[in-house]
Amino acid sequence: MTTTTPDETAPPSLRTRIRRIAQRGHYDRATLHAIVDDAFICHVAFADAHGVHCIPTACWREGDYLYIHGSNGSRMLKLAASGAQVCVMITHLDGLVLARSAFHHSMNYRSAVIYGSFEVVPDDHKAAALDAFMEGFAPGRSRQVRRGNASELAATTMLRIALAEAASKIRTGGPADDEDDLALPVWAGVLPMALAPLPPQADTPAIEPPDYVQQWREGDVADPV
Amino acid sequence: MTTTTPDETAPPSLRTRIRRIAQRGHYDRATLHAIVDDAFICHVAFADAHGVHCIPTACWREGDYLYIHGSNGSRMLKLAASGAQVCVMITHLDGLVLARSAFHHSMNYRSAVIYGSFEVVPDDHKAAALDAFMEGFAPGRSRQVRRGNASELAATTMLRIALAEAASKIRTGGPADDEDDLALPVWAGVLPMALAPLPPQADTPAIEPPDYVQQWREGDVADPV
Repeated sequence: MTTTTPDETAPPSLRTRIRRIAQRGHYDRATLHAIVDDAFICHVAFADAHGVHCIPTACWREGDYLYIHGSNGSRMLKLAASGAQVCVMITHLDGLVLARSAFHHSMNYRSAVIYGSFEVVPDDHKAAALDAFMEGFAPGRSRQVRRGNASELAATTMLRIALAEAASKIRTGGPADDEDDLALPVWAGVLPMALAPLPPQADTPAIEPPDYVQQWREGDVADPV
Repeated sequence: MTTTTPDETAPPSLRTRIRRIAQRGHYDRATLHAIVDDAFICHVAFADAHGVHCIPTACWREGDYLYIHGSNGSRMLKLAASGAQVCVMITHLDGLVLARSAFHHSMNYRSAVIYGSFEVVPDDHKAAALDAFMEGFAPGRSRQVRRGNASELAATTMLRIALAEAASKIRTGGPADDEDDLALPVWAGVLPMALAPLPPQADTPAIEPPDYVQQWREGDVADPV
């Protein structure tokens, strides 16, 4: 018996090959996992009889799968659960790149695209998967809250998609101006940005905030897991 | 001659009617414009012979249109320029909503969806539109940089889509727990977040930073225009 190791320097399919500025493309697992793990939400694109749709939804990673969940009544989840082909996009905007020429202005970003179809997560894994999701941004919380009861879990559809037909695209660094423009007396550089925490808003002022709430101002919320 | 005013309390089409938690849906122009104006990027979903795709790209608003642009070589722009049906999604994640029960955890967000097809922006409006985009996040900069020359503008495709078949969806506020759970000794509330500026990184240390660079730390970067 032989095992094959995927070539992590090459795109896994034609449609994951980065064409525009190919050197920004990455096909290794570590890069992909890091981008997925920094995300609270993804955008799921799919098509039905009414056209193409794009819907944002919460997401998390377990191993080599991206998970999403929601109400059984969700049109997107119903279609995705039926095995429809989807394109899942995760995008982190990291900064505005200000060049000396209008033409070379750009943005810094980290993005990941996943093609394929979702599969339904079995009922007996739902509670554990939801715990894992919660532990990612609020360690310990899954043992503090009232966990989902049978009817709540039954009303929830959970899906996962393999991180197989996937690619990452990243831009970092300063502007790439034409040499002729380098001497222009124009400020150039990067205006970086990140998703950042704002002060927690308690619904329960009498209850001592747990560590993950107290640390909300100190941590980097773009890093939920 | 009579003029008709769109009913801003009703969805403009079947596919823009918010179905999941309908009370979060908004159909008025002011709400839509505010969500679009807070965005640096949108996600454009479209379909071709290889399936459904979803691509993030910079965007800005002029009047009742959303603008995007990029290289003539972009597959997405080529397809969109040909009149393909698209779904454009803008999403701002505003916070994690921590409920007393696992089931009622949620997120606060502001999102906008636009259906339809893009149209090509005429060549003679490209330079002015790019100036307007830049002025949105860097007032005065369009007069400081070297503007696009004829060949740079010719290499750029600019498209716009009417903000007509569009809808907004917003969640704000704290958790909506079941009454039976309200007395549980679990911290509940919102962990808010926002896209926030980090210190500017100058490529041109000898040049005095203009006002919009100096103010990068003071302003709210989630409000580019």
